[in-house]
Amino acid sequence: MDKDSVGIVETKYFTFAEPPNEMLLESGEKLGPVTIAYETYGELNFSADNAILITHALSGDAHVAGFHSKNDRKGGWWDFMVGPGRPFDTNKYFVICSNVIGGCKGSTGPTSVNPKTGKPYNLSFPVVTIGDMVKAQKELVLHLGVKKLLTVVGGSMGGMQVLEWAIKYPDMVATALPVATTSRLNAQGIAFDEVGRQAIYADAHWQKGNYSENELVPAQGLSVARMLAHITYLSEESMHEKFGRRLREKERYGFDFSTDFEVESYLRYQGESFIKRFDANTYLYITKAMDYFDLCRDFGSLENAFKDVRAKFLVLSFSSDWLFPTAHSKEIVRALMVNRKDVTFCEIPSPYGHDAFLLRNEYMEKMVTDFLFYAYD
Amino acid sequence: MDKDSVGIVETKYFTFAEPPNEMLLESGEKLGPVTIAYETYGELNFSADNAILITHALSGDAHVAGFHSKNDRKGGWWDFMVGPGRPFDTNKYFVICSNVIGGCKGSTGPTSVNPKTGKPYNLSFPVVTIGDMVKAQKELVLHLGVKKLLTVVGGSMGGMQVLEWAIKYPDMVATALPVATTSRLNAQGIAFDEVGRQAIYADAHWQKGNYSENELVPAQGLSVARMLAHITYLSEESMHEKFGRRLREKERYGFDFSTDFEVESYLRYQGESFIKRFDANTYLYITKAMDYFDLCRDFGSLENAFKDVRAKFLVLSFSSDWLFPTAHSKEIVRALMVNRKDVTFCEIPSPYGHDAFLLRNEYMEKMVTDFLFYAYD
Repeated sequence: MDKDSVGIVETKYFTFAEPPNEMLLESGEKLGPVTIAYETYGELNFSADNAILITHALSGDAHVAGFHSKNDRKGGWWDFMVGPGRPFDTNKYFVICSNVIGGCKGSTGPTSVNPKTGKPYNLSFPVVTIGDMVKAQKELVLHLGVKKLLTVVGGSMGGMQVLEWAIKYPDMVATALPVATTSRLNAQGIAFDEVGRQAIYADAHWQKGNYSENELVPAQGLSVARMLAHITYLSEESMHEKFGRRLREKERYGFDFSTDFEVESYLRYQGESFIKRFDANTYLYITKAMDYFDLCRDFGSLENAFKDVRAKFLVLSFSSDWLFPTAHSKEIVRALMVNRKDVTFCEIPSPYGHDAFLLRNEYMEKMVTDFLFYAYD
Repeated sequence: MDKDSVGIVETKYFTFAEPPNEMLLESGEKLGPVTIAYETYGELNFSADNAILITHALSGDAHVAGFHSKNDRKGGWWDFMVGPGRPFDTNKYFVICSNVIGGCKGSTGPTSVNPKTGKPYNLSFPVVTIGDMVKAQKELVLHLGVKKLLTVVGGSMGGMQVLEWAIKYPDMVATALPVATTSRLNAQGIAFDEVGRQAIYADAHWQKGNYSENELVPAQGLSVARMLAHITYLSEESMHEKFGRRLREKERYGFDFSTDFEVESYLRYQGESFIKRFDANTYLYITKAMDYFDLCRDFGSLENAFKDVRAKFLVLSFSSDWLFPTAHSKEIVRALMVNRKDVTFCEIPSPYGHDAFLLRNEYMEKMVTDFLFYAYD
């Protein structure tokens, strides 16, 4: 374990919205009790102005940094960003990360037991939105004694939450750091999500979402959804560099339907490892929340959406990201500038596509460090 | 029916490679008898030098033009290109189109009955290559009395066949017209194909390919594969124009997993209509043939592949095609030019992505017409 790791950490749980005080969702449905799984690193200072909330992407969780045990081979999903001396410097900042509601990593979601029935919600779980996720996070943040966050930061779906935070709770967000994100998915993004969902529906074990009553889960459907999504997280360039047309442990084509190419083997591995750590119904809910996120729809226009934000922004995109392309970040930047908001923007050169935000990148680390330095010091 | 339609046409069948004279495939396997479904339009002239072979893409068939009956609502898959006065002018040219071997539209493929067992081949059908498809077409062309084709033309996988024809049978091809194609799929292309295959494998009705013994076919898996592929045939731009984030017959989100967006409804329709006209095992075979196509691998380099071609080339790509991007066509053009071959190239401006070659386009129609005029007249 590196010296600048946060070390051994623990996931904690916060429960609120106990009946009859359920949480009102954007759909009009009510949800309660609501549990949020979260982790924190560093210490909240006396004036409680050094808190950073990190929001996660589709398949992320509260475990953004550190290790749950000495035997863990890998740290949290953004480990290199969080720790003593790292961009989210835990010597200076109090870092919070929570699993979104609708998730399957400890927060209330479709795999949770519905207290009214004693059975898992499955598809009776209400459809939640990015707004609902953020509304729940707000309860956690207040519970932790934070009235104003120094920054809210996240990539991809995490970036959607960042935008939602800055817009809905302008007095609680000093700075906002949306990374590789969008104010709304385009038709192609919705289309990819829908095909992923269809792959899950097509799995005979899905059973209209009631697979928790059986021993078999819709693993193959979820695996196909993940493989597909994974292609969209990479760039054509990086796939070419990494795999090209190299064959997998053979000199000539197999002339059968086993694995011929490295890229096939890699994708199958991605699918197989995903099904061990993620739930199929949850995949439906989270992709739906992303599809529904649309600041233009909610506010009439993107300009209007940002009218009342008070946070300073650092908007980051990656040059080879074709799922959440730079043009989408520029729309956000433009709408902020029209409103005369304080915004810095950078398209970071990277060949690694959308997933670039999860990989070490000198530009990203330096810019985040400096942005926080000026925001806090 | 328009005046310049080829009118009512009929699919014909040609059988060869009767045992013990089976066709030798690139895999080393033998296949026979081999039946090819084909259609012809126009008349072969006395000197037999006015024949045009049109090769089809993944899901195409021999029915490129005209109508099978007066009740047909749609003509063949490239109807606007073939007919009296159309670019492939049936007043002047003898047009041939055949279903590839490995296909499911009348030519011998995995759905055909294996004469040795009396049952459908299913996965016991040998894996065929683009080279094998072309080798079988050659037998048909010779059978029709044509020793040299005026042109071989096709888009996407059809373009692969065009390249193969020009290289393998240089004395039989006067001109070659590869459209929206590549000399080899990139890693991303293979990846998309593999996810489509995985979607089929994941369907419980697939039964390792032996579904023909049951009443149920792997329709859902095939549908998912088609939906995914369909996204890659369009451009982000055209999806945005056509669908954007428009909702399907509703004012607000449904907050459920029925159809919310137009683009979802469109994709589902694409999937559902495909399963009525295509076979899942065939989808496996045809995508595999595309994955295997690699002129660099076969010849050491693309330059070397084109060393002995004698055909004049017109290479066409479409500006918004990201599946078979212009860069791939330019590689072909470059390799031809290095060999001092006669090649004309145009990237046609179009917002419609890879599928642009199947849509009416003034540039394409004019360039094809003129190219043939100078080749024949």
